[in-house]
Amino acid sequence: VAQKKTKLDPLRASAQEEVVTEYTSSLPFDKELYFWDILGSIAHVDSLKGAKVLSAAEHAKIRKGLAAVLDNLNKGKVELRPELEDIHMNVEALLGDMIGPLAGKLHTGRSRNDQITLDLKLYSRERILETMEELSELQEVLLSIAKKNLKTVMPGMTHFLPAQPVTLAHHTMAHWFKLHRDFDRLSCCYDRMNCCPLGAGAIAGNTYDIDRFATAEALGFKGPTSNSMDSVSDRDYAAETMFCLAMIQVHLSSMAEEIALWNNPQFGYIKLSPTLTTSSSMMPQKRNPDVAELARAKVGRVVGDMLSMIVVMKGLPLAYNRDLQEDKEPVFDAFDSVVDSLWAIRSLLCCADFDVKRMRAACSAGNIIATDLADYLVKKGMPFRKAYLTVKDMVNCSIDEGEPLEEWELSCFKEFSGLFGKDVLDYVKPESAVERRKIHGGTSSSSEKASIAIAEKYVERQLKVMESIEEDVEGTITRLLGAKAGSRPQ
Amino acid sequence: VAQKKTKLDPLRASAQEEVVTEYTSSLPFDKELYFWDILGSIAHVDSLKGAKVLSAAEHAKIRKGLAAVLDNLNKGKVELRPELEDIHMNVEALLGDMIGPLAGKLHTGRSRNDQITLDLKLYSRERILETMEELSELQEVLLSIAKKNLKTVMPGMTHFLPAQPVTLAHHTMAHWFKLHRDFDRLSCCYDRMNCCPLGAGAIAGNTYDIDRFATAEALGFKGPTSNSMDSVSDRDYAAETMFCLAMIQVHLSSMAEEIALWNNPQFGYIKLSPTLTTSSSMMPQKRNPDVAELARAKVGRVVGDMLSMIVVMKGLPLAYNRDLQEDKEPVFDAFDSVVDSLWAIRSLLCCADFDVKRMRAACSAGNIIATDLADYLVKKGMPFRKAYLTVKDMVNCSIDEGEPLEEWELSCFKEFSGLFGKDVLDYVKPESAVERRKIHGGTSSSSEKASIAIAEKYVERQLKVMESIEEDVEGTITRLLGAKAGSRPQ
Amino acid sequence: VAQKKTKLDPLRASAQEEVVTEYTSSLPFDKELYFWDILGSIAHVDSLKGAKVLSAAEHAKIRKGLAAVLDNLNKGKVELRPELEDIHMNVEALLGDMIGPLAGKLHTGRSRNDQITLDLKLYSRERILETMEELSELQEVLLSIAKKNLKTVMPGMTHFLPAQPVTLAHHTMAHWFKLHRDFDRLSCCYDRMNCCPLGAGAIAGNTYDIDRFATAEALGFKGPTSNSMDSVSDRDYAAETMFCLAMIQVHLSSMAEEIALWNNPQFGYIKLSPTLTTSSSMMPQKRNPDVAELARAKVGRVVGDMLSMIVVMKGLPLAYNRDLQEDKEPVFDAFDSVVDSLWAIRSLLCCADFDVKRMRAACSAGNIIATDLADYLVKKGMPFRKAYLTVKDMVNCSIDEGEPLEEWELSCFKEFSGLFGKDVLDYVKPESAVERRKIHGGTSSSSEKASIAIAEKYVERQLKVMESIEEDVEGTITRLLGAKAGSRPQ
Amino acid sequence: VAQKKTKLDPLRASAQEEVVTEYTSSLPFDKELYFWDILGSIAHVDSLKGAKVLSAAEHAKIRKGLAAVLDNLNKGKVELRPELEDIHMNVEALLGDMIGPLAGKLHTGRSRNDQITLDLKLYSRERILETMEELSELQEVLLSIAKKNLKTVMPGMTHFLPAQPVTLAHHTMAHWFKLHRDFDRLSCCYDRMNCCPLGAGAIAGNTYDIDRFATAEALGFKGPTSNSMDSVSDRDYAAETMFCLAMIQVHLSSMAEEIALWNNPQFGYIKLSPTLTTSSSMMPQKRNPDVAELARAKVGRVVGDMLSMIVVMKGLPLAYNRDLQEDKEPVFDAFDSVVDSLWAIRSLLCCADFDVKRMRAACSAGNIIATDLADYLVKKGMPFRKAYLTVKDMVNCSIDEGEPLEEWELSCFKEFSGLFGKDVLDYVKPESAVERRKIHGGTSSSSEKASIAIAEKYVERQLKVMESIEEDVEGTITRLLGAKAGSRPQ
Repeated sequence: VAQKKTKLDPLRASAQEEVVTEYTSSLPFDKELYFWDILGSIAHVDSLKGAKVLSAAEHAKIRKGLAAVLDNLNKGKVELRPELEDIHMNVEALLGDMIGPLAGKLHTGRSRNDQITLDLKLYSRERILETMEELSELQEVLLSIAKKNLKTVMPGMTHFLPAQPVTLAHHTMAHWFKLHRDFDRLSCCYDRMNCCPLGAGAIAGNTYDIDRFATAEALGFKGPTSNSMDSVSDRDYAAETMFCLAMIQVHLSSMAEEIALWNNPQFGYIKLSPTLTTSSSMMPQKRNPDVAELARAKVGRVVGDMLSMIVVMKGLPLAYNRDLQEDKEPVFDAFDSVVDSLWAIRSLLCCADFDVKRMRAACSAGNIIATDLADYLVKKGMPFRKAYLTVKDMVNCSIDEGEPLEEWELSCFKEFSGLFGKDVLDYVKPESAVERRKIHGGTSSSSEKASIAIAEKYVERQLKVMESIEEDVEGTITRLLGAKAGSRPQ
Repeated sequence: VAQKKTKLDPLRASAQEEVVTEYTSSLPFDKELYFWDILGSIAHVDSLKGAKVLSAAEHAKIRKGLAAVLDNLNKGKVELRPELEDIHMNVEALLGDMIGPLAGKLHTGRSRNDQITLDLKLYSRERILETMEELSELQEVLLSIAKKNLKTVMPGMTHFLPAQPVTLAHHTMAHWFKLHRDFDRLSCCYDRMNCCPLGAGAIAGNTYDIDRFATAEALGFKGPTSNSMDSVSDRDYAAETMFCLAMIQVHLSSMAEEIALWNNPQFGYIKLSPTLTTSSSMMPQKRNPDVAELARAKVGRVVGDMLSMIVVMKGLPLAYNRDLQEDKEPVFDAFDSVVDSLWAIRSLLCCADFDVKRMRAACSAGNIIATDLADYLVKKGMPFRKAYLTVKDMVNCSIDEGEPLEEWELSCFKEFSGLFGKDVLDYVKPESAVERRKIHGGTSSSSEKASIAIAEKYVERQLKVMESIEEDVEGTITRLLGAKAGSRPQ
Repeated sequence: VAQKKTKLDPLRASAQEEVVTEYTSSLPFDKELYFWDILGSIAHVDSLKGAKVLSAAEHAKIRKGLAAVLDNLNKGKVELRPELEDIHMNVEALLGDMIGPLAGKLHTGRSRNDQITLDLKLYSRERILETMEELSELQEVLLSIAKKNLKTVMPGMTHFLPAQPVTLAHHTMAHWFKLHRDFDRLSCCYDRMNCCPLGAGAIAGNTYDIDRFATAEALGFKGPTSNSMDSVSDRDYAAETMFCLAMIQVHLSSMAEEIALWNNPQFGYIKLSPTLTTSSSMMPQKRNPDVAELARAKVGRVVGDMLSMIVVMKGLPLAYNRDLQEDKEPVFDAFDSVVDSLWAIRSLLCCADFDVKRMRAACSAGNIIATDLADYLVKKGMPFRKAYLTVKDMVNCSIDEGEPLEEWELSCFKEFSGLFGKDVLDYVKPESAVERRKIHGGTSSSSEKASIAIAEKYVERQLKVMESIEEDVEGTITRLLGAKAGSRPQ
Repeated sequence: VAQKKTKLDPLRASAQEEVVTEYTSSLPFDKELYFWDILGSIAHVDSLKGAKVLSAAEHAKIRKGLAAVLDNLNKGKVELRPELEDIHMNVEALLGDMIGPLAGKLHTGRSRNDQITLDLKLYSRERILETMEELSELQEVLLSIAKKNLKTVMPGMTHFLPAQPVTLAHHTMAHWFKLHRDFDRLSCCYDRMNCCPLGAGAIAGNTYDIDRFATAEALGFKGPTSNSMDSVSDRDYAAETMFCLAMIQVHLSSMAEEIALWNNPQFGYIKLSPTLTTSSSMMPQKRNPDVAELARAKVGRVVGDMLSMIVVMKGLPLAYNRDLQEDKEPVFDAFDSVVDSLWAIRSLLCCADFDVKRMRAACSAGNIIATDLADYLVKKGMPFRKAYLTVKDMVNCSIDEGEPLEEWELSCFKEFSGLFGKDVLDYVKPESAVERRKIHGGTSSSSEKASIAIAEKYVERQLKVMESIEEDVEGTITRLLGAKAGSRPQ
């Protein structure tokens, strides 16, 4: 393709047309929206009938035509025309092929400015639902790992160093709660965006007696937007959706980093399914955690997507500017990336084996019981700062002698403080350490069960949110297309 | 300062200490948090008393000491010590100066890991409230402009071109609704963050019998967090807060762009208060809209702040990593920038005069009535596409003749279509055009009044949200410090 | 597509394979690289022959096979297989179809880790050249406008306000020099990247006696890279290329903003070619500058592309990680966006008419001569600050009276200062104002001619840079494929 | 501070002044520039004398005054006045205090628009030099580690997994070459920015007979800029500088990640100096690598700084807009962050001990010799793909038996292929593996020495670049201030 454009003479009209066609056409990407575009049109013709702009006969004819166009597109029976700059013009042209000049009435009281933001909202609603469903599936896997590992001890790390013993359940649930915030954030975003811009026209509304509340209801929105200029210029929802998606990907990147780390033989906490790793073209001994690496990397692309939208919005005067056409590709890409990453990380975790022996051994090696020993001394009456220094000496001695604290005899303990009693020998086991943290949100199995119970209540709420969104999304299809089956693109 | 560091020999211990002190110390910025840090400590000692870790006498002594430290800091009577790396160590040291070694007990069952995220949450809560209040003030100014200008016509622009007539009220309310979404977004963010991390310790909770629900209540949170590892690693709230702030700044940048544009003599729609503009050091004729320009530019800094947080979070394994120390400066900067920008734009708009004559004249010049003429013909029975082409011809004729459509005589109209009647002469006035858009969210004064009524309902809700947050914030102070007066930094 | 993935059971091997295939495959985008991938392979087999790894007969057979595979791909005679994860495996498989098991020897002493970064460098080199060519074409248009408008006065703006008179030539050349820096920046980036990674293997080099200097020369590089671990982990060049592209797009966004502004009837400085604007589907009077709006917006996408790469690179340990696969799509997208935008803005400007009368009139209206009047007084002996205040009074008077300074009579001037002489009447014309700035880089026609002469020297240098890069790029093709014609993808 | 601003009534002039003062003042940060601002002024008065705008006596008086102002500021004898909005106005006011109304002549033929970009360039030049010096120091440490460890084998990792043996020298030099590119990039950026904007005035140049070439030379620039409108609107250099700094920080983040990883006891490759780690307030056993963690995190802030500048520049029309005032803080912050991080990582590495035994042991455990075994078989005549599969079987057997390949007896090898001879027993040692890679850029000690020789040539070139920049920077000071000593701020 290289060098071609420099050869074009911009003074020739054909070259100019090529510029406009190639540079401004949105068809290559907005064709993704055809399903929702047509549903929006069906709702619009219903409104036009309500407003007496279309007679019953006209209405029936256009509606039937739109259904046929949708069916043809679903089945790949018709082709979109690149020379028509966007999906809206294509659908209208296809309708014209079907029902003749009456098709022209479809666009009455509407502009591409309100139409495109409607389409993107309808699309986003469905994909938010899909994201929520994928997120919930991953949460379920995490919950299931947690339930099986309430007593599996492992080193909890701070500063990339073994710090205190935790359980695999506790570690896993930490990620669960992050994902729950992600769900919640997406749910708020959905609520905020779910109002209908149709009727805003190009900028100022329209002059027809259209009942925007009825249109909004038909399309599963909680109501119409309240200002036409805001309606056509608003892309807050796109930026916010991508922010929500970016946060999910950030959380996945943490899980992915841990998977890659734990997969390293120096850690060896996890064994990934061979089918889910890839081989090296050169090194026969390797099974690479590519899935995790890519999930970590894709933060870049989702954050890039979000940033691109915000940069587009910066400093734009009201109302619609063509700049806003740059909204769709990042949104599509961010949804694809995050949904796929959720699916990929879920698959990895679902099929992984955890090497609980290596986790247990790492606890012992790291002297991660030191904080507990300090607490032990504090409870026997020593001030915290003094206890801290005493244990520090013990840790140094343990390192010098190569003998983990966990394996010391009582006499050794007593050399450092007379406050140590026989109970210290059990006290220094990671198993007893995690059980001692009975505080809410702590590592004990009872605390964990309480946290899991909270999580399960959240699951119920999440289910209700998804049911309600599904009602908006699927209800729209049922209301406007009648039967659901066969009407959806696959 | 240049070149100094290259001269330091890293093999000398003193140089090493300098590295650590200068590079890792957070005191230069986290000192901002001293007020909330001490309040968190007071809540913590109350909990320690409840858990029988502190006797009543110890508790009273520490509490009194903390109050005295706070008072000294408020009054600037004591100095922070740069060699102590953060605000937490400084407060503990000041407490030690006051009450001796007992101060060491303050840190029992707590880590700087849960302490710092508590501090940042407490700080953010107060500043979210401040932002909401500033946002509401700006909304009030916009609402007041709208109410006064329900019939002030002006060109509504799309693609930077006059498109259709709107009213100044309608234009202003478009911004109002954007800011309302910003308020709502910030409110959701607040709800999501408002749970208490204290008790999470360094990573695993603590072994004391602390009632985290009571602590959370004392500090005005809706409850404690549910997982200690999540608690110390979570900075979602910081990223989300900055995203919310970035969206506000994006909306301000649009207003700012318009102000700068309207201030240009070619538009001349607005006259800014001389006191709010700046002069040129070289060009005597100018009054520059610097305030607007800076508000537009500051999108960069707030977006940069948000991105810096997300980049920090990418790929971090659980749980606390020192990377997270990079959370505070961007949060502080983003709040400062947005609050100041809200205040600055509010001041500009509040003191501006709108030149309604120039707005009206611009309507006439731009033939922005063209869409309406097409609608006119459609309503008389012409298909939309044909009407569109007819009006296009009329517009071209108007340009050739230099006669705005608004000023044509009936006979001229009739030359283009017999469907034109006498009513067209009124029809082409922008005033009648805006009134025709009686649709919900449209430009007519009745639609606008309906939108304003909706906005006023939202105002009531916003007030309730702010009252509730104020109760969390101020209630915390009252509960922990008793009397409010005099305890706050100024 | 929605909801599908949640239905897959990750415990089934087929679903796992689907994850890996869909999530990790790079074929959907790296197929773009097939031409350069095959050229890299040809250079590699030449090296293998040189190192006696391949016999002359084996070498000839593989080379012929690779040429045939290339030809087939160019002509669309063969299909790529999605189940093979990337372009490298596909080419090897196609070669295997052609020449049997000998194809397996192609990969000796090479890894996909060095192969992919080679491909991306070869691709980037060609597209940097293309970008430079497009950039130069736009510069040529700017230069041509400048040469025709050395005396066309217009208001120079600061703070979005008319400040001082400049010429259209001067304004245009300001953009020219920005683009020249862009060219220069890209040229430095090219030089830095143009070293050959082939031979770095997976991470550690290889054990064959390959002459990497010869390979590098064959591929048009200035030499081989010097460290194998750096070679496979380096994506600096991708980030830097995208930064260079982002700066170009930023500069285009400024031009685009001005075009949109000048296209507004309030300014009316420019008339765009109708073929290069788009119509409104609703508003018959409008010709929208969509091309300019999109060029302004695309800063978002190019900056997003660059950011995504940097985020990917953050915190990655050596050496190759699969994260780096996320390098290609943003690079492709950034090149596409910038090349197309250069072409689009060039077309717009090339076909635009400038309304020099409106520019001249705007000078008069804006009192932009005020600075000159102050200078006038300074030259007659008044201190600058006093002159400044005197002229400020004159400007206020001019506004009150509605009489531009340019049209004042001498007596009016004298009312403000006795220093004014008859020469002031000419002095206040914008034409004489621009001519007075004879300083290097100033607005006078002589200064402009000097600047244009500098620009033309830079053009010569740019040409030499492009010739040299073309030699690298085309020379590689000639050396490795013999005849150039027909071997390139179209 | 909270809630204050909402209480201000913007209709009162005092409140308006407060808005402008607080919101638009740049003094809080541009005071950093006072030294270079005054030097720029001295060069300017020299030019004014040359252009006969100032008499010799006036010139002498202003010059002496400026020197005194500088001295006073250096010594902290005078205070800047917050009510004067920027450093330029402050310096002029201080000069006025010193020499009376003549001070007003300083600003003749100059604007703050050309002055501020001059200041920022002068400042950036010096800090680029400082960054280069720090970078070179870190490179020196890396080179010294490399020279001592030409034969220290360690696992080279790909995909976070041990892949092939490399040497510590090779690993270290990989980072060296990345930093060299950073140096080179910064050097190109310096060259591009090093032209003098003074004389561009507010937008259009000035009317005095100033020799801009002489001014440029006095200030150590390679020449004056060629277009006044470009000069005052150009902030490319700020964005590019920050991009260069961001890439350095990205490279530091990789080193930091590895340090944190190697510091983990599971790896244990590195022992950090205790003085350079920090302790846990709760966990006595820990020495945290905070310095590394912060260096990793600071990518966020430097990238955020760069992006903020690009966002500011997007869509700005020519020429100067106040938006550009947002340039300074990110530039200052990015320099501070990167210089400090270079210093911190250098200190860490300089004082670290490498545990070469653990590195060696990790080689053995990881079967990282597998690729070599495949090569062995290929060299004995087996096709690569078959050799690959054979070795894969051997690796699986090794894992099953728990016997590293390195420790197998010959008979075991022969079970898998008759091609294995006695030489394989040495062949499987990592030491022989690294030595086999004699290819340019490979791991053998001879290859490494060749790479180090290249690096040392680059060091010489870097030194020359730094000398040349130092000449620009220090030469400017000498030329304008005479004696260097005592004139610099400390």
